[in-house]
Amino acid sequence: MSAPRATHRMVTRIARKGGAVASGLRAVPEEVPIAFSYGGSTHAVMMGTPADLEDFALGFSLTEGIIASRSDVEEMEILDEETGIDVQVTLKDDPADALRIRRRHMAGPVGCGLCGIESIEQAVRPVPDVSAVRLHITADVLVEAIASLNGNQPLHRLTHAVHGAGFYVAGKGLVALREDVGRHNALDKLAGAVLNSGHAGAEGLVVVTSRLSVEMVQKTAILGASILVAISAPTALAIETAEKAGLTLVAIVRGEDFEIYTHHSRIDTGVSADVA
Amino acid sequence: MSAPRATHRMVTRIARKGGAVASGLRAVPEEVPIAFSYGGSTHAVMMGTPADLEDFALGFSLTEGIIASRSDVEEMEILDEETGIDVQVTLKDDPADALRIRRRHMAGPVGCGLCGIESIEQAVRPVPDVSAVRLHITADVLVEAIASLNGNQPLHRLTHAVHGAGFYVAGKGLVALREDVGRHNALDKLAGAVLNSGHAGAEGLVVVTSRLSVEMVQKTAILGASILVAISAPTALAIETAEKAGLTLVAIVRGEDFEIYTHHSRIDTGVSADVA
Repeated sequence: MSAPRATHRMVTRIARKGGAVASGLRAVPEEVPIAFSYGGSTHAVMMGTPADLEDFALGFSLTEGIIASRSDVEEMEILDEETGIDVQVTLKDDPADALRIRRRHMAGPVGCGLCGIESIEQAVRPVPDVSAVRLHITADVLVEAIASLNGNQPLHRLTHAVHGAGFYVAGKGLVALREDVGRHNALDKLAGAVLNSGHAGAEGLVVVTSRLSVEMVQKTAILGASILVAISAPTALAIETAEKAGLTLVAIVRGEDFEIYTHHSRIDTGVSADVA
Repeated sequence: MSAPRATHRMVTRIARKGGAVASGLRAVPEEVPIAFSYGGSTHAVMMGTPADLEDFALGFSLTEGIIASRSDVEEMEILDEETGIDVQVTLKDDPADALRIRRRHMAGPVGCGLCGIESIEQAVRPVPDVSAVRLHITADVLVEAIASLNGNQPLHRLTHAVHGAGFYVAGKGLVALREDVGRHNALDKLAGAVLNSGHAGAEGLVVVTSRLSVEMVQKTAILGASILVAISAPTALAIETAEKAGLTLVAIVRGEDFEIYTHHSRIDTGVSADVA
């Protein structure tokens, strides 16, 4: 494996500010093609931030249903090609796995969002039910989990242009945080980091800095986490899917304010809410 | 064609604000699977906002290289399925077109970003050169173009959760603005709207409310526009690609302040910039 790639670059640009015009430097995030190959054949290519690639490949393999656990992966090799990065994944020798991958490959790879699939039915794939996950937290823990992201997003601090996804366990703090120019990638990287941490998804909260699509609810449920917090707004389908999956969806966070969209009983707000 | 689908929904959520907790309503954007079919066979499925579907299909067909102009499309039919929308596109009878689509389909559909493709080389596809486009504007026109988005993003005003893409022609104003939960979709819808408007892409500026990936630079160049303005930040690859394509990239807009990343000679800032 070669030296790690840079995740940002300094570029010269002309800035107009308060009527004055001057040239100067700004840090911008790198965006490179990242391919995932299984058994030597490319399964999908995503544009992303060239960091935490083992986490990314592991998390992607999990949330795409290619593996069920960390131990399904035999080996990973990262090949730094001229125009991008190829992550070669070798799975434990299991004919069933090979077949499963072949089937998914033929169905069309799924990367960011749900593009690349070939039917509307595939787009709304079934989501694991996390209703049984018994996690109860106070509003204070929720606010603490959100605040824990601050100071742990180095690339965002440099560029103000990438998404973050964190996993927080009450009493233990922020277990992992991963960044990427793509919000789905950041969440896949986090899923891989959680698998590598030895923590179960059910132990903690997933907190993302972005808006929330249905795909992010699906990925969170597949990881086994029952509480998903998005700093920004959710779509109607994300809410509907969280409702069905028994997942607690919190969104639109501003300081210590937040909104609970589904399965609010996991969050003790300290006040009896005026719920009809 | 059935009645238009709603683009947002009112949902009940529990909001904690300033220590008080209460339930109430919020508008959230719809997110539905939208399939594009050519000659009866599904080419790609994207998650998006169910509005301006003809523009979306037309713009997608253009930026994906399936059509070269509006007249390549014979007919469109929008089928409202239970779980999503299927836009059936019939192309003018041309065996070459059919072959081209077949080839792209086999290569894997490309939707949002660059996922769904099967090699790193495909990810960094060549971009049309727009160096020859002679468009020169003043900083005032640029500021006016950006300001023209305000008041023309009805879904964003309701939900604060969707992206907008506008096309502005100096002296004529905002020709078109399209919205979507996905930024790539918003830009494809805009490309279709520009084709339908009778304006050439070379006449105006493309202004997007989002961050800027390489794919958005590619789409803008394919539309033939030479100036792309993003309210938020660009990636390094977006800048590099704009530089190569002869496209003027403006980003990080705050009020009347902005930053020019590439080919600044198209923008007269009124001040001689201190460029090395």
